[in-house]
Amino acid sequence: MTEHCLWRFSRALHRALNERQHEDLSNMIDEDIDWAIYGPIDMFPFFGARHGKAAVLEVCRQIADNVRIHRFDREAIMLGVDTSASMIRYSLTALDSNKPISLRMAQFTQFKAGKLVSMRILIDTFDLVEQAIGHPIDLPRIA
Amino acid sequence: MTEHCLWRFSRALHRALNERQHEDLSNMIDEDIDWAIYGPIDMFPFFGARHGKAAVLEVCRQIADNVRIHRFDREAIMLGVDTSASMIRYSLTALDSNKPISLRMAQFTQFKAGKLVSMRILIDTFDLVEQAIGHPIDLPRIA
Repeated sequence: MTEHCLWRFSRALHRALNERQHEDLSNMIDEDIDWAIYGPIDMFPFFGARHGKAAVLEVCRQIADNVRIHRFDREAIMLGVDTSASMIRYSLTALDSNKPISLRMAQFTQFKAGKLVSMRILIDTFDLVEQAIGHPIDLPRIA
Repeated sequence: MTEHCLWRFSRALHRALNERQHEDLSNMIDEDIDWAIYGPIDMFPFFGARHGKAAVLEVCRQIADNVRIHRFDREAIMLGVDTSASMIRYSLTALDSNKPISLRMAQFTQFKAGKLVSMRILIDTFDLVEQAIGHPIDLPRIA
């Protein structure tokens, strides 16, 4: 029984983000990868869609320039043969402000021949924005 | 081969939300269900955590009072024996303002003996808030 690609990818990603060691990550990214982190790209330029290995490695470098990961917990996980879906809670530091950030994300991955071909990340972005600006945003009550 | 619980639950949920027919949904909710929609509860009181069948049925009634679903597309889906994870794009109308709302959510479910025992929903909430208030929120650029 071989290890699921997700675990190797997860180690490679965290190594790239926290230690700036991008080689393992590079080896796991398909040339034709489709990648998207949904969220406000005006505030977080490393969010949004990327296509192709070079663009994805570049965006991972940008993320590494902006955050440090302290801890993550997979609250839910599903593994298929070449796919995975996880709900993950991250504890980060925003490097520019030195602020602690805690966020929850859903991550859907697809692998092909051991390489990541698709990544979709959804984040509770309103909570993230409030933490990043450092104060609550005033909202009307809808219901 | 029996149908996965997710499909029956999905039909029951949409029937409850759009047609106010809550019976099928009620039959599929475990008494001890754990439910959470992550997001700003000050603006959307039907977000947040609920525990137990009565609380979940009540929150579904509140959601039905606030939105009408026009269309949904599952962009990604994983099915386990008693679990599922989906990335779904919804087209809704906010009933108070008659505004169209388009949102992406990740939905993790767990079933037991044909009933829903756990539901976790993550939404790109910043995008949702901007649509609900009807204008962009000014943000600083972080990176």
